Amino acid sequence: MPEHREHLSIGDVTIDDDFWAPRREVNRTETIEYQYQQLNAAGTLENFRRAGAGERGDHNGMWFQDSDAYKWIEAASYVLTSRDDPELDERVDEVIALIADAQEDDGYLNTYFALEAPEQRWTNLNTMHELYCGGHLIEAAVAHYRATGKESLLDVATDFADHVDRTFGDEIDGAPGHQEIELALLRLADVTGENRYRDLAAYFVDVRGNTDRFEWEDEHRDEIATLDQWEDDDGDEEDGDDEDDGDGDDNGDEDDGDGAEVEPFDASYNQAHAPLREQDAVEGHAVRAMYYFAGATDVAAETDDEELLAHLDRLWRNMTETRMYLTGGIGSQHPGERFTRDYHLPNDTAYAETCAAIGSVFWNQRLFEATGDAKYTDLIEWTLYNAVLPGVSLDGTEFFYDNPLASDGDRHREGWFECACCPPNLARLLASLERYIYAADDEGLSVNQYVGGSAELSIEGTGVTVTQDSDLPWDGTVTIDVDAAEPAAFELRLRVPGWADGVSIAADGESVDTTGVTDDAPTYVTLDREWDDDEITVAFDQSVEILQAHPAVAADAGRVALTRGPLVYALEGVDHDRPLHQYAIDPTSDFEATYREELLGGVTALDGEASVPSMDGWHAELYRPAEETTETAAPITAVPYYAWDNRQPGAMAVWIRES
Amino acid sequence: MPEHREHLSIGDVTIDDDFWAPRREVNRTETIEYQYQQLNAAGTLENFRRAGAGERGDHNGMWFQDSDAYKWIEAASYVLTSRDDPELDERVDEVIALIADAQEDDGYLNTYFALEAPEQRWTNLNTMHELYCGGHLIEAAVAHYRATGKESLLDVATDFADHVDRTFGDEIDGAPGHQEIELALLRLADVTGENRYRDLAAYFVDVRGNTDRFEWEDEHRDEIATLDQWEDDDGDEEDGDDEDDGDGDDNGDEDDGDGAEVEPFDASYNQAHAPLREQDAVEGHAVRAMYYFAGATDVAAETDDEELLAHLDRLWRNMTETRMYLTGGIGSQHPGERFTRDYHLPNDTAYAETCAAIGSVFWNQRLFEATGDAKYTDLIEWTLYNAVLPGVSLDGTEFFYDNPLASDGDRHREGWFECACCPPNLARLLASLERYIYAADDEGLSVNQYVGGSAELSIEGTGVTVTQDSDLPWDGTVTIDVDAAEPAAFELRLRVPGWADGVSIAADGESVDTTGVTDDAPTYVTLDREWDDDEITVAFDQSVEILQAHPAVAADAGRVALTRGPLVYALEGVDHDRPLHQYAIDPTSDFEATYREELLGGVTALDGEASVPSMDGWHAELYRPAEETTETAAPITAVPYYAWDNRQPGAMAVWIRES
Repeated sequence: MPEHREHLSIGDVTIDDDFWAPRREVNRTETIEYQYQQLNAAGTLENFRRAGAGERGDHNGMWFQDSDAYKWIEAASYVLTSRDDPELDERVDEVIALIADAQEDDGYLNTYFALEAPEQRWTNLNTMHELYCGGHLIEAAVAHYRATGKESLLDVATDFADHVDRTFGDEIDGAPGHQEIELALLRLADVTGENRYRDLAAYFVDVRGNTDRFEWEDEHRDEIATLDQWEDDDGDEEDGDDEDDGDGDDNGDEDDGDGAEVEPFDASYNQAHAPLREQDAVEGHAVRAMYYFAGATDVAAETDDEELLAHLDRLWRNMTETRMYLTGGIGSQHPGERFTRDYHLPNDTAYAETCAAIGSVFWNQRLFEATGDAKYTDLIEWTLYNAVLPGVSLDGTEFFYDNPLASDGDRHREGWFECACCPPNLARLLASLERYIYAADDEGLSVNQYVGGSAELSIEGTGVTVTQDSDLPWDGTVTIDVDAAEPAAFELRLRVPGWADGVSIAADGESVDTTGVTDDAPTYVTLDREWDDDEITVAFDQSVEILQAHPAVAADAGRVALTRGPLVYALEGVDHDRPLHQYAIDPTSDFEATYREELLGGVTALDGEASVPSMDGWHAELYRPAEETTETAAPITAVPYYAWDNRQPGAMAVWIRES
Repeated sequence: MPEHREHLSIGDVTIDDDFWAPRREVNRTETIEYQYQQLNAAGTLENFRRAGAGERGDHNGMWFQDSDAYKWIEAASYVLTSRDDPELDERVDEVIALIADAQEDDGYLNTYFALEAPEQRWTNLNTMHELYCGGHLIEAAVAHYRATGKESLLDVATDFADHVDRTFGDEIDGAPGHQEIELALLRLADVTGENRYRDLAAYFVDVRGNTDRFEWEDEHRDEIATLDQWEDDDGDEEDGDDEDDGDGDDNGDEDDGDGAEVEPFDASYNQAHAPLREQDAVEGHAVRAMYYFAGATDVAAETDDEELLAHLDRLWRNMTETRMYLTGGIGSQHPGERFTRDYHLPNDTAYAETCAAIGSVFWNQRLFEATGDAKYTDLIEWTLYNAVLPGVSLDGTEFFYDNPLASDGDRHREGWFECACCPPNLARLLASLERYIYAADDEGLSVNQYVGGSAELSIEGTGVTVTQDSDLPWDGTVTIDVDAAEPAAFELRLRVPGWADGVSIAADGESVDTTGVTDDAPTYVTLDREWDDDEITVAFDQSVEILQAHPAVAADAGRVALTRGPLVYALEGVDHDRPLHQYAIDPTSDFEATYREELLGGVTALDGEASVPSMDGWHAELYRPAEETTETAAPITAVPYYAWDNRQPGAMAVWIRES
């Protein structure tokens, strides 16, 4: 088993760069604030208030809406970790008080059941999301405790976890329909030191694949808690995307599998079709899969289960080699918000839920910590820029739930969703970005993400300050100052991104040998030396890449996409005179990268030349001999995909026809 | 006003060729027989029986299901026109007796209302299709009378028409939600000589655009006949396609507009958004549009309304120049089965309803008869081969309701549909194909379609027999014998198809001057001479054409399609080793056309070479630099589009990537 790396604590890292810091400020001032307003407006807090007062009926919103409050506390707690904000602190305390009041004497806590069906708790594991909500409660509690030292919510979470520990395994033997509790229990174990939470997490990881309980529930629909009020026509009751989503697939060819509607039970929907160790592809609901694999990776790491870890890497390879959009987005189909089949990656109907990308970050971070492999941190970088960030508008007030890679102009971010899982998930990830930048172990420090700011840590007892200055994503120049309290020998490992075409590294002006670094795969360059007060300069070459997809991907046949550095690019209608489908680019052509301060909050745009059909000779006919075609040249401009749909509404395309 | 041409009567034409005659035999023995079984199985005849017996409730099937019986009688009558079949004759009489019994004393006839809501007749013109059913009753009656001379159904039809004549205009002022009565009344006027039916048809043509009545109904939903039992989730209650239809568009961006569900009233759905003369594009439900324009063309012709005729041609040009699939299919969107917007012609989700193509044939025939323009008869040929014929399997037992131009392998013909409008519509068109081959006027005879067989007619009192031998669609060789009872001078007009690359015509071995015939547009070559017993030989050059679509068509950008003669071709998965999306063809490449007796009942297939991506170097990655691509060559085979999905299930594509 490789040594386990551990991300630095949020409080030990600061972020102070030109790219992420402003986004985190928007996240704090706009998104987290707006989400609190939503907790009130949507009746989420009222649910806790009424449950605490012993009232009944009239539960507001989705049946798993408690999780919105928990995710808000988690996001707010991350803010409180690095910032004194008495007002926010007090607001969090007020929400926690409501939550604590709503908890029942035996530790159970769920306002939907308290208000609607107290006698039916734990009767429908597949659909009712009690353990999913509980997992978010625990994550919030751990974050709050770490941020403030207060045990108010931690006590609620441990009482809940103890109740679960008493209830599951013997009284009830089964997995939840939506994973989340697994990874949360491991965090609770970390903060409390209670190993039984680890064992309980391992139980939930391993019991999945035994579908006896789900099948029993499926056969006893009349006796268990159900969600008649949540059934809608197309069976996608968890899909919060109220707008036309451009999905091309309402034809029942995939059942979303959620037991709330009367559909055949589909165990693959929540990865219960086989024991994890026997699953040979990533299947089902993408968010569930990511949360599950994240929890399982933690369990594998904590139990030194190399076999499980290797199996999880096989699943990772299936995902990244056959079922992932160029952006890092996953889950290609709207019905079921799920993975479908190898190489099925439609662009205009791409689901690629923002939450699934966030879950991918969670999973990849754990895979990296367990293995030290750069491919995981590399994918985190790519996913953050191209699959997470597109989920929120530049001003922080509008959100994509699903993230198409092509649009004919009718897809736009929305202010909120009935199922508002994505916005607070984004908020908590952005507010905890510190976690992903560095990881430490006994041998030294890994620099995983090039985000400017600083970190304080102790390596073998020596205090070390790392200060990073990064021009990413626009330029691959990074400077890292390492300042050790006293001279100390340790490894500094620098991730060389998969996107880098070349790399030069110098330590105190002296060139570092990068032999063995290739263009093909990300890796770490290790600087193993004595550190005192040293400066490392890094230059990753960024050139415009024109990529193609594997020939098995039907949607991308005859198409290419532009990337530069860690960014995927897209064409937007607003930058072009013609409909986007008319542009075709030569895969050997050159694009010029120019930073434009005034564009989209400041982005590097790519300018090139495309061929477009001449309109000569087209008069009244709709079809004519192809040999009559002539092509002409037209300018083409690509902007970072994350920034699309922040100007006037229009079409968008990531994959452009190849000329 | 140009002279009006008149198609020859069905009884005066025989069809005896290698292509259409076998299909008509399948139509007679399989389709028409099967449809009769369906009339019983679906309870359609039982509805008449029970209505005639004064029973109530439990109407079977769709509320406009009476029309299935009428269309069956119409198809059967066409068969009876040219064939002695006492068994079929008797069966038709039995059905007619049931219909006659179900007619009410005042002439009204509709089994849905008789059984379910007799007091609510004529309260919901928009949705309830009483006049639509009545139109089919009239068409059936006219066909039956012309075939057999019996007045049994004609009496029912005239009583119904008289009731409508009494009811509409004064008592009720409004148009029906689904056109059909207009063109039917004109047929009834022809056969009865009653001009008031012409006036009534003209009334229905002109009242459309006045939406007062529809709006009144929309505002009085609670007081009028409604179809709660017919409302389904996606509002497409008239769509009989039970199977996954691959439609990509359930997102409410177009409302199908039918008043049965509680949706905002959409007048464009049934072409009521403006008076016909003010409509500047073909809008709404495609079948409704075709039936409407057909009726309106008849009215224009009969009233010498050149302005209206010119306006209808403008609509025709909007349709053919911006809203028609390469196949001649029309109505690109599943919700609403409708036209959408210029150049919006998606391939995999193409609706292109079989009934709409049939309606297009009806309309084009009338436009030709009124104007003599070859472009209309040319489109009839194209539509018959490429948009009507694909609607039925080679064995005559399975049907396409919608006709996609691309499929990933999950689209197949079905045995029947809940809304079974298409199969009997196909049956009546195939059984009346004689109508479309020749048209006569005082000056002579137009040869509109090259279908082998013979025709008897009288020109200026002289009996003329025309015998045609045609190798179409596989070869452009046609021989026409003209045998006049005594030498007579008249015009023989030969349509030179738009697809012909060249033409040579000889009369009695002597070359005919075809100066002025171009590749660009269909035209008629007129042979104005004295005829006795003469042989005309015609050779239309057929080469493989590689076509492209107008640059505004997003779905076809960077793609080409193959045609040869009057046929559109398609690739089928069964003929190829790789997924179809991997094939790309050079628009200057050559294809070899080979007739294959054993293939698909005998077809000319096109064989060529395509480029496909080499799989070299593709290992674990999903995306890589495009410059690493290499291409290799692979054989490609195209078969006529009409014949697709008659072998093992698989993918299909009309539009192929251009290399």
